[in-house]
Amino acid sequence: MTNKKEYNFPSCPIPISDYPRVLLAHGSGGTLTNQLIDKIFRSVFNNDYLNQSHDGAIAQISANKIAMTTDSYVIHPIFFPGGDIGSLAIHGTVNDLAMCGARPLYLTVGFILEEGLAMEDLWRVANSMQRAAEEAGVQIVSGDTKVVDKGKADGIFINTSGVGVIEHDQSICPQSIKEGDCIILSGDIARHGMAIMAVRESLSFENTIESDSASLSDLVLKLIKSKVTIHCMRDLTRGGLATALVEIAKASSMAIEIDENVISVREDVRGVCEILGIDPLYVANEGRFICFVPESEAKEVLAIMKASPLGNDASIIGHVVKGKKTLVIAKNQIGTTRIVDMLSSEQLPRIC
Amino acid sequence: MTNKKEYNFPSCPIPISDYPRVLLAHGSGGTLTNQLIDKIFRSVFNNDYLNQSHDGAIAQISANKIAMTTDSYVIHPIFFPGGDIGSLAIHGTVNDLAMCGARPLYLTVGFILEEGLAMEDLWRVANSMQRAAEEAGVQIVSGDTKVVDKGKADGIFINTSGVGVIEHDQSICPQSIKEGDCIILSGDIARHGMAIMAVRESLSFENTIESDSASLSDLVLKLIKSKVTIHCMRDLTRGGLATALVEIAKASSMAIEIDENVISVREDVRGVCEILGIDPLYVANEGRFICFVPESEAKEVLAIMKASPLGNDASIIGHVVKGKKTLVIAKNQIGTTRIVDMLSSEQLPRIC
Repeated sequence: MTNKKEYNFPSCPIPISDYPRVLLAHGSGGTLTNQLIDKIFRSVFNNDYLNQSHDGAIAQISANKIAMTTDSYVIHPIFFPGGDIGSLAIHGTVNDLAMCGARPLYLTVGFILEEGLAMEDLWRVANSMQRAAEEAGVQIVSGDTKVVDKGKADGIFINTSGVGVIEHDQSICPQSIKEGDCIILSGDIARHGMAIMAVRESLSFENTIESDSASLSDLVLKLIKSKVTIHCMRDLTRGGLATALVEIAKASSMAIEIDENVISVREDVRGVCEILGIDPLYVANEGRFICFVPESEAKEVLAIMKASPLGNDASIIGHVVKGKKTLVIAKNQIGTTRIVDMLSSEQLPRIC
Repeated sequence: MTNKKEYNFPSCPIPISDYPRVLLAHGSGGTLTNQLIDKIFRSVFNNDYLNQSHDGAIAQISANKIAMTTDSYVIHPIFFPGGDIGSLAIHGTVNDLAMCGARPLYLTVGFILEEGLAMEDLWRVANSMQRAAEEAGVQIVSGDTKVVDKGKADGIFINTSGVGVIEHDQSICPQSIKEGDCIILSGDIARHGMAIMAVRESLSFENTIESDSASLSDLVLKLIKSKVTIHCMRDLTRGGLATALVEIAKASSMAIEIDENVISVREDVRGVCEILGIDPLYVANEGRFICFVPESEAKEVLAIMKASPLGNDASIIGHVVKGKKTLVIAKNQIGTTRIVDMLSSEQLPRIC
């Protein structure tokens, strides 16, 4: 289930016979910390910024507007079908920058390791991060590693923070959405959350459900380059599509109507949702987003999305309407409507 | 010992009777997450960037060179004489930017909370962060909160990542140091580490040892504004003065000679070091730094430092010499010399 065979990396340069597991001393700032940083992080993330060997990285910026974001990743388990905590930590932060309309450039990485973490797992995660970073066109320019005693963390937590540049004049944010805007969803939903839950609950199916974890940056940069008007974008992570819609409606003082009939959920994903009693609208995705655009430009946006493997199943799922008391309403399969609100209680802990 | 009386904040807006402790649901992305973010983080860190309510923050940058850095804070205990994990997380990251010669501007914050953390503690930490951020002239522009199940973290871990701008043409980094450079230390050492260890070991003294945790940004900006030549700066955190010197010598292929007689260590701090069998040269500081400058400018740098409360005890502790096999040599109290190398084993875990 942990698709180990997908990993095709050189073997770990820290001999497993010497250090099979991460020790507290790997976080002390002494020679073992230096060995860990040199042999794993610097050798894998290798770039000129990181090689400055300084307290931070100094980089050129050619725009006067930047986007900044941060996310910590505490997902359990750390390896799952379709990805791992490393690739997820790159995709998630790159996508947050893309949603701001920025070209992601530089990431920093903060590791919190639990004493006893298998060195081989850290090596695999680092390599997976680098591969995802290369695919997304970003560089890991600065990092930090802490080790806490056994029982005071859970294997590995990763924070990635990112800087991107804004190279256009559009104001892409919730406050820009307007009455009549079309809401375009980039593809089927609920795969990431259900991939994780299927592993945790040891549910097996004919085909393994894989996370949709992916960098959305290329697709978003294509949209921006095409000069279509984009009012707002949001990736559908924790809390899923439903929470994203409610948050945007709340922040913009507008209301939203969606049609559940056109929201695509794969059969097997819907099956796991039903077994676990979970509404797919609330399930985390890591490679899906919604885009608010004027109705007059929806066709063009849809065409650009459909030309990308990450958006070939895109569709218009709803519209922005005048603000009212009920923020988000969904028309469901049998033609009736329901109110979509945020959940208060924990549905899926540690899904990202 | 936790100097609670120093905290003079309004009471927590989330009623303790409703939510005395952080629940897993506070990290679910639903209404409880939104309440936590609105009532604690947004209300305390309140600024225009954060209020964009977006996946990231968009900010203007007026320089074409930026510095970026990241640090995770896992210190135990989270409240200690002279500070707490919140102020430390601001000072540490601001100082890393300052050491790059940057003016710190924007920070992001990632919280990893353990289910069961006292809500009041989170409130105090957030307020302490905001106070430290204001003092250092930085804004917290974007954030993220994760909650993990009880026993899978230790109360609270904080990552802060920062962006600063470089407003001068100097190249301040280990590779810039030159033979003959004076090494100036900004004040007495080993207070932060010993303040933490004294709490952990329940050692009590006539006067409580307080951490030296402080923002070095103002002092560094004064140095830069004065146009003195600075070859390298480094704050003396994890691994202390000794590790910083070895790292810089290694990165620059130069060697360093220091005179231990002029390195100031407070009597009570030296006492704790002796009780615990710890060399003060290796103890973490959070408000001290070293500065490598040409001998001809050392007097001027020293004068600027001494005019600041953060540098009034500054002194020249050594020089850069031609590279050789032994990177750092210290002349000690009785006139003999010793080799200063990195430690391999864990001396003080979770000190920052």
